[in-house]
Amino acid sequence: MEKYKIIEIQRNVLANNDEKAQMVRSSVKDKKYFLLNLMSSPGSGKTTTLVQTINHLKSKFKIGVIEADIDSDVDANTISKTNAKVIQLHTSGMCHLDASMTESGLEALGVDGLDFVILENIGNLVCPASFDTGATKNVMILSVPEGDDKPLKYPKMFRVVDVLLINKMDTIEHFDFDLDAVSKRAKEINPSIKVIPISAKKGEGMSPWFDWLIQQIEATK
Amino acid sequence: MEKYKIIEIQRNVLANNDEKAQMVRSSVKDKKYFLLNLMSSPGSGKTTTLVQTINHLKSKFKIGVIEADIDSDVDANTISKTNAKVIQLHTSGMCHLDASMTESGLEALGVDGLDFVILENIGNLVCPASFDTGATKNVMILSVPEGDDKPLKYPKMFRVVDVLLINKMDTIEHFDFDLDAVSKRAKEINPSIKVIPISAKKGEGMSPWFDWLIQQIEATK
Repeated sequence: MEKYKIIEIQRNVLANNDEKAQMVRSSVKDKKYFLLNLMSSPGSGKTTTLVQTINHLKSKFKIGVIEADIDSDVDANTISKTNAKVIQLHTSGMCHLDASMTESGLEALGVDGLDFVILENIGNLVCPASFDTGATKNVMILSVPEGDDKPLKYPKMFRVVDVLLINKMDTIEHFDFDLDAVSKRAKEINPSIKVIPISAKKGEGMSPWFDWLIQQIEATK
Repeated sequence: MEKYKIIEIQRNVLANNDEKAQMVRSSVKDKKYFLLNLMSSPGSGKTTTLVQTINHLKSKFKIGVIEADIDSDVDANTISKTNAKVIQLHTSGMCHLDASMTESGLEALGVDGLDFVILENIGNLVCPASFDTGATKNVMILSVPEGDDKPLKYPKMFRVVDVLLINKMDTIEHFDFDLDAVSKRAKEINPSIKVIPISAKKGEGMSPWFDWLIQQIEATK
């Protein structure tokens, strides 16, 4: 049996992505699961964070993952080892997921019986910020090596997310990264943003993240 | 006197970007300077690499820099301290530079008397790979913390570049990053790619990069 499907998305940019996103969100609500849109730069640790998260929550919840990439199935392969339900979406070169692609992904994944579905968006701080996927909540990861100036350069991304995970905290002594400065810059753009420093690789600082997720998932029931 | 201009680009996606790129390239050739398009993920160290590069080459060549970002002038401010000629382009939310924006940038910068102009593209591994800017050569930076699987996920970027700088080599012991594997993956996609491991922050391993640049700049004369 195949470990996961690979879906090739056809380009179909809708005139009204926001309308489609509301349809997706409404369907997600009806089906009583939590749909999370996870965004970041390439290589910030989205997949490692997901593996830790799935392994922590899988005894409590049924979890599905939609991996979006331009190419390859590296991430779907990694996620499949957690035994979560997973598919790989290829976005036909597009730099973001929109609501229509999300709908196709959810259909291909099959959400019946799932409590929690994660969209791992394309690694990109620009395009994904402009397209509502229909997810219940949006989260971004910023990793320490990327630098603390990112809220200044990519304000839209910081504006649209509910939670900012600061990953690779275990490497902070090797980089010029001011955690207080980045939190302050993010909160100037988005006062309600929740900032959680973690090391996904070491599994450190993850409890506030897991607690937030559990609260969100339980709120859908 | 202002340290540098900030240019707000109007959206104007040309039907035929390739044609415009050829026009830019031809004008660059006529004016006998070397135009480099520098691409990478956010936070891979483009600006730090540029500062080191400018400081090394500025006694020998007249250098200009076009900094492209969605927002802020953090990078133009950093570059201005090297005394290179610099402008900041804002791309009106767009996730890449195209040839038309490059032309506007070159016009705003003023290239008379310059030997070497660098376009610091938007931090993004997807969109910039699809738009020829008209630059003489394309270079990308991949930093160690981003991981060695990036050629698999973003093959188009690795296909279009002449040089791949692997930055933040000073941190390699803190990350799971296989330099041989990434070189092999990049060369499978693009057999003529030149791979140069560096640490821009420490100024280590930069000589082959400087040598390559000097060769390119001298070839335009």
